[in-house]
Amino acid sequence: MTTDILKIADKTFKSRLFTGTGKFSSANNMREAIIASESELVTVALKRVDLENESDDMLVHLSDNQINLLPNTSGVRTAKEAVFAAELAREALQTNWVKLEIHPDPKYLLPDPIETLKAAEELVKLGFVVMPYIHADPVLCKRLEDVGVQCVMPLGAPIGSNKGIKTLEFLEIIIEQSNVPVIVDAGIGAPSHAAFAMELGADAVLINTAIAVSQNPVDMGIAFKMAVEAGRMAYNAKLAPIKNQAEASSPLTAFLNDLN
Amino acid sequence: MTTDILKIADKTFKSRLFTGTGKFSSANNMREAIIASESELVTVALKRVDLENESDDMLVHLSDNQINLLPNTSGVRTAKEAVFAAELAREALQTNWVKLEIHPDPKYLLPDPIETLKAAEELVKLGFVVMPYIHADPVLCKRLEDVGVQCVMPLGAPIGSNKGIKTLEFLEIIIEQSNVPVIVDAGIGAPSHAAFAMELGADAVLINTAIAVSQNPVDMGIAFKMAVEAGRMAYNAKLAPIKNQAEASSPLTAFLNDLN
Amino acid sequence: MTTDILKIADKTFKSRLFTGTGKFSSANNMREAIIASESELVTVALKRVDLENESDDMLVHLSDNQINLLPNTSGVRTAKEAVFAAELAREALQTNWVKLEIHPDPKYLLPDPIETLKAAEELVKLGFVVMPYIHADPVLCKRLEDVGVQCVMPLGAPIGSNKGIKTLEFLEIIIEQSNVPVIVDAGIGAPSHAAFAMELGADAVLINTAIAVSQNPVDMGIAFKMAVEAGRMAYNAKLAPIKNQAEASSPLTAFLNDLN
Amino acid sequence: MTTDILKIADKTFKSRLFTGTGKFSSANNMREAIIASESELVTVALKRVDLENESDDMLVHLSDNQINLLPNTSGVRTAKEAVFAAELAREALQTNWVKLEIHPDPKYLLPDPIETLKAAEELVKLGFVVMPYIHADPVLCKRLEDVGVQCVMPLGAPIGSNKGIKTLEFLEIIIEQSNVPVIVDAGIGAPSHAAFAMELGADAVLINTAIAVSQNPVDMGIAFKMAVEAGRMAYNAKLAPIKNQAEASSPLTAFLNDLN
Repeated sequence: MTTDILKIADKTFKSRLFTGTGKFSSANNMREAIIASESELVTVALKRVDLENESDDMLVHLSDNQINLLPNTSGVRTAKEAVFAAELAREALQTNWVKLEIHPDPKYLLPDPIETLKAAEELVKLGFVVMPYIHADPVLCKRLEDVGVQCVMPLGAPIGSNKGIKTLEFLEIIIEQSNVPVIVDAGIGAPSHAAFAMELGADAVLINTAIAVSQNPVDMGIAFKMAVEAGRMAYNAKLAPIKNQAEASSPLTAFLNDLN
Repeated sequence: MTTDILKIADKTFKSRLFTGTGKFSSANNMREAIIASESELVTVALKRVDLENESDDMLVHLSDNQINLLPNTSGVRTAKEAVFAAELAREALQTNWVKLEIHPDPKYLLPDPIETLKAAEELVKLGFVVMPYIHADPVLCKRLEDVGVQCVMPLGAPIGSNKGIKTLEFLEIIIEQSNVPVIVDAGIGAPSHAAFAMELGADAVLINTAIAVSQNPVDMGIAFKMAVEAGRMAYNAKLAPIKNQAEASSPLTAFLNDLN
Repeated sequence: MTTDILKIADKTFKSRLFTGTGKFSSANNMREAIIASESELVTVALKRVDLENESDDMLVHLSDNQINLLPNTSGVRTAKEAVFAAELAREALQTNWVKLEIHPDPKYLLPDPIETLKAAEELVKLGFVVMPYIHADPVLCKRLEDVGVQCVMPLGAPIGSNKGIKTLEFLEIIIEQSNVPVIVDAGIGAPSHAAFAMELGADAVLINTAIAVSQNPVDMGIAFKMAVEAGRMAYNAKLAPIKNQAEASSPLTAFLNDLN
Repeated sequence: MTTDILKIADKTFKSRLFTGTGKFSSANNMREAIIASESELVTVALKRVDLENESDDMLVHLSDNQINLLPNTSGVRTAKEAVFAAELAREALQTNWVKLEIHPDPKYLLPDPIETLKAAEELVKLGFVVMPYIHADPVLCKRLEDVGVQCVMPLGAPIGSNKGIKTLEFLEIIIEQSNVPVIVDAGIGAPSHAAFAMELGADAVLINTAIAVSQNPVDMGIAFKMAVEAGRMAYNAKLAPIKNQAEASSPLTAFLNDLN
């Protein structure tokens, strides 16, 4: 298993659990849960970064633990806004990685496929490592790959819903066809969901709400860490096939002869 | 978490993963996978025990690792046969624990509720610790509890099917109503299924086929171990609620003002 | 299709939709919905029958429409009570048909397998046509068949839940193995659920709550009638197989040549 | 129910079942099944139309039965090709209606969101009534609505898979947000699936494979017709709510007093 390393662009990851920083009840809870989860890539909304203050506590602390920060463009509604936000983030956080999120609808926060492809194309040209959050749309995934994104991040269910992997039939096609890592983002609400995504062959998962709003975010972070490892290990070891019938049991055994 | 110990009758268990010994490609694979899984209770078919030979290698080896053997009555079709088998097992393995399995149909190996209740009642009177394998039938679970079984073992799906938790609505009722530990037995085919059962509040799971027929039983044993721990930890930390709508995001943030 | 008639004991049914009389907002609503549904077998709780009053309006009206009344034993908790109730019903309603329901738990009203088998055996001996409401337990179904019941009535989901067919894996086995008609009872909450049960090969369905508590019971009765017919017709016409891949489309066609 | 009419652009439809003409074993089977289904809108691949021969039998026959033909652009891979195909179809079939299908991938035939939006915008400007086949992507649906399509046709599952409504969570959002009719297209494999889509509030469904490859396409056409009507009627009558617990039954009734 020592070689089962995830690579995105120029970075390698031992952990296949990516996390987020929103919705925690305190910054302290957030830090502790993320560290306990052993996540190595943590997304942070640009709007939550104190752009003026170089010593933003949250960021300093996470960086000290060798956790990579991944700015996201949450809050933008168009490709143009997304590119602008990505450039601000690059300057503020000294990283050319960006999680591209464009969701015009404030109720469900679902991603816009058209603006996302347009922004991805431009950001790639501008030298960004682009990680786009998208619907589980296999054709869109291929088009994003064609313009040079470094991974795709299809959703499992509406963001924040905690409903789990509701896009199974489409994730399977995406995983089958993709030449870049597939990271299931949004909708995962329980460790069992994360394990399931990994068993399907996803390369990683991103979890935020499910850890942040748990009654015990530290333990939930650990639980997700274990579930992701379990799912990945099971994927590599190959699951037993699903059957409609029990295997014929051995003929009735000798020990019953004494009785009958 | 140090106090989250499972107790059945007079025994305590740190691990909530119970395993079986059937269908492995070799005795060696079986031993290694079980030890890797850290399971502390392993069920063994009486028909697989060499009743004449006190030094049955399989059993000696597992016992040396402080793993409890749980003889099962697999192969019997009636209460009478089950009681006879349990008594043979008690003598052979020096244990009064028995996994009660009565399945008259050789195709699906589904349990007989009538004979199981009858045998359970008698075995309890004979001093056995009875662990009955049953359909996920909440009324039957209560009746078994009434006659003194030490736990109930409802199925998640037909045995050997690897289909997962297909009896969700009934397991929830069983878990809500039970005064004895609830152990999900049969049908669990992937670590995600095991994690899900634990998230529901099951006290333990029993896995056999899914580990035994994997291409890498040792890794699969470890994967199930982690998944069970993850699911239990998540159950204790409380899962985030399922929602139909994303939480209203914060109002559009200042950083976009520069753009518009 | 003219020969696709359901036969139970000595009666034949053109309609495969059985209904119930509980939970309607008025007796009039009940009558109209049942007549609109074209159901030919309607179950009625013995406790709702006015045993003293020979001209109970509800019953008279339904009988006038050539609808068969099927007394049920709802409210009893043991085999002994069930037999007593069945005998009262036989006398009151002049029918030896009985829907056998024994559910000791007042919260979920789930059936007791042990008492049900015991009562079924005795009622068959007493000359009743016994229609037992049970868990979707394939072994119990076979045992009931062995004692002479005229059909089995496994549940689709907890009664009154409207959750649909949650016992799919077990209904499939029951339908495969049964030599008596299989009628899915309890849990069906929408016409789509009823159609699905029929597509699986169930011989009939029994619907009560879903019609009774609808805002428009008459239309809902018609909707269920159509859905049951649709599901049965699809079962006979054979459904198309489930596939993981689209059929290869024809090679690109001539008309595009003008463009490229 | 007399006013429950579906309107798209300038046409009204009594039937909410739209059908297709592909994959039937013979033209005769196709005609008979479609007529039996009472479908009033039938999609036909442009590549199947004999553009040279004005008296194409298939089309003449369907037109004689007052069935509207809906040419589709199946086989095209880009917006440019789609527009060209739509114009050919307009000329050949004398209709400005077009089902817009752009699927570059020949294996799964999944639609391209980017090209579809681009083509939709242009076709609307050219005076077409545009009915786009798309992923169940709520944001894309709104964008298509914004450019003037007359309905949206999100998929239920991969086309030809017969898997049913696998995009439930997204269809619910689409139906909630849409100002144009929502027609579930692709993936529906059984009458129960069609009924379910209608119960959710879809305005219509389009079925092709499931009728065409059935062993009895005529009966399957009738089955779908009834299921669609049942689902629509249930939607209007309002389904009973899903519950986790049975309604408390009435206290034990008088008739048991005689026994106890």
